Amino acid sequence: MSYQKGEKLYEGKAKVAFSVLSEESLVWFEYKNSLTAFNAAKKGDFEGKGRVNRDIASLVFRYLNDRGVNNHWVKDHGDSEMVVKKLEVIPIEVVVRNVLAGSTAKKFNIEEGRELEKPLVEFYYKDDALGDPFISDEQALMLKAASLEEMSELKAQALQVNEELIPFFKAVGLRLVDFKLEFGRERNGKIVLADEVTPDTCRLWDVETGEKLDKDRFRRDLGQVKESYEKVYELLSKRWEN
Amino acid sequence: MSYQKGEKLYEGKAKVAFSVLSEESLVWFEYKNSLTAFNAAKKGDFEGKGRVNRDIASLVFRYLNDRGVNNHWVKDHGDSEMVVKKLEVIPIEVVVRNVLAGSTAKKFNIEEGRELEKPLVEFYYKDDALGDPFISDEQALMLKAASLEEMSELKAQALQVNEELIPFFKAVGLRLVDFKLEFGRERNGKIVLADEVTPDTCRLWDVETGEKLDKDRFRRDLGQVKESYEKVYELLSKRWEN
Repeated sequence: MSYQKGEKLYEGKAKVAFSVLSEESLVWFEYKNSLTAFNAAKKGDFEGKGRVNRDIASLVFRYLNDRGVNNHWVKDHGDSEMVVKKLEVIPIEVVVRNVLAGSTAKKFNIEEGRELEKPLVEFYYKDDALGDPFISDEQALMLKAASLEEMSELKAQALQVNEELIPFFKAVGLRLVDFKLEFGRERNGKIVLADEVTPDTCRLWDVETGEKLDKDRFRRDLGQVKESYEKVYELLSKRWEN
Repeated sequence: MSYQKGEKLYEGKAKVAFSVLSEESLVWFEYKNSLTAFNAAKKGDFEGKGRVNRDIASLVFRYLNDRGVNNHWVKDHGDSEMVVKKLEVIPIEVVVRNVLAGSTAKKFNIEEGRELEKPLVEFYYKDDALGDPFISDEQALMLKAASLEEMSELKAQALQVNEELIPFFKAVGLRLVDFKLEFGRERNGKIVLADEVTPDTCRLWDVETGEKLDKDRFRRDLGQVKESYEKVYELLSKRWEN
């Protein structure tokens, strides 16, 4: 089945969304070449970033589908586009951490790299104007971001994705340190994994050397951003692409 | 029964703790005249503050005891001292909010004074060096601050204290906006309300005028700090002291 791109709906930091002609239940994503960090206070881009992230996201979504983890992926288009299910956004960013790094390591003054006894799930309220603050279940409820039942579903699905993605990345020599997921509701209320899983939204460290192969290269000015994203796709596609 | 003060154990921001001679299971608190805010970045004091806060805390603890809410209060001594049960500290500050104000109002850019549909319970990790950060249940578990069962007990007890204290303050024309509680473990693991409930740890607004009668007068340089604390005690003691 082939789809046709309709009018522009909105532009996010890493993707532009369009309608799909005659398909009310779908959305067309165009992955952009831009990179942002620290709530878009830092901006950058590289040629081919939209393509490599679309390719990685697509690979992850198809892998998850094969493993029974439902998600919004429908079909890739062109170099850097993807048709996905239209969902009602749940304004919660769900972070799963296997190893402490980034904001939570800093918050508790714990050295980056500490392996956690069990994965830590965190919620952040998706609101750029507020800086996506860290929230508790009770605060999410107060904000009417999700119901209690939905929050326990979000945590269960996030942990399931983690269980699938740890070996997915480990098989190509990458350690899945942490990652951020977003979810949406289908018309019937069913909660479905959305957004993307890419080096923009994951911390991926080389299992052997500890080298970072993710957006921290951009955030922390480590250089080789493009090369790192491309290496992640190369490793994954060689192992997982049919 | 009369107790004798032993050696100094430690000094906190608002109280000094001493041992109690021949009483291993007790601690002697001396309420100080000092006031601190913003993790002690702002400091002040007023004559009689230790006395008025000890008197308010004592009144609250005895009222809660009468209503079946177990707490660490044992006996008052002198002007500004109190003998309490020795407990193992649980490093969680439990905040209950009936009305949005302070840090949480700011975090979500919601105007101070919004009445909540139901009380909001929040946990903060008790660690001055980290600035007592807001935490989720999952983070508390990661930090081994408390077990899941203990956290649900902390929330239940905090809500019970709230149910008792709303009418306690309302009867004297004060609106209990929010407050912070601390708890400790007895030897048998039982969780008991500790620390204090005073204008240092509560937001109390005049029901009619909205006037603040709590530490926000000090935090926000509103003046009449001493007079406000003394007014709270005068109102409460007139109504509740036998």
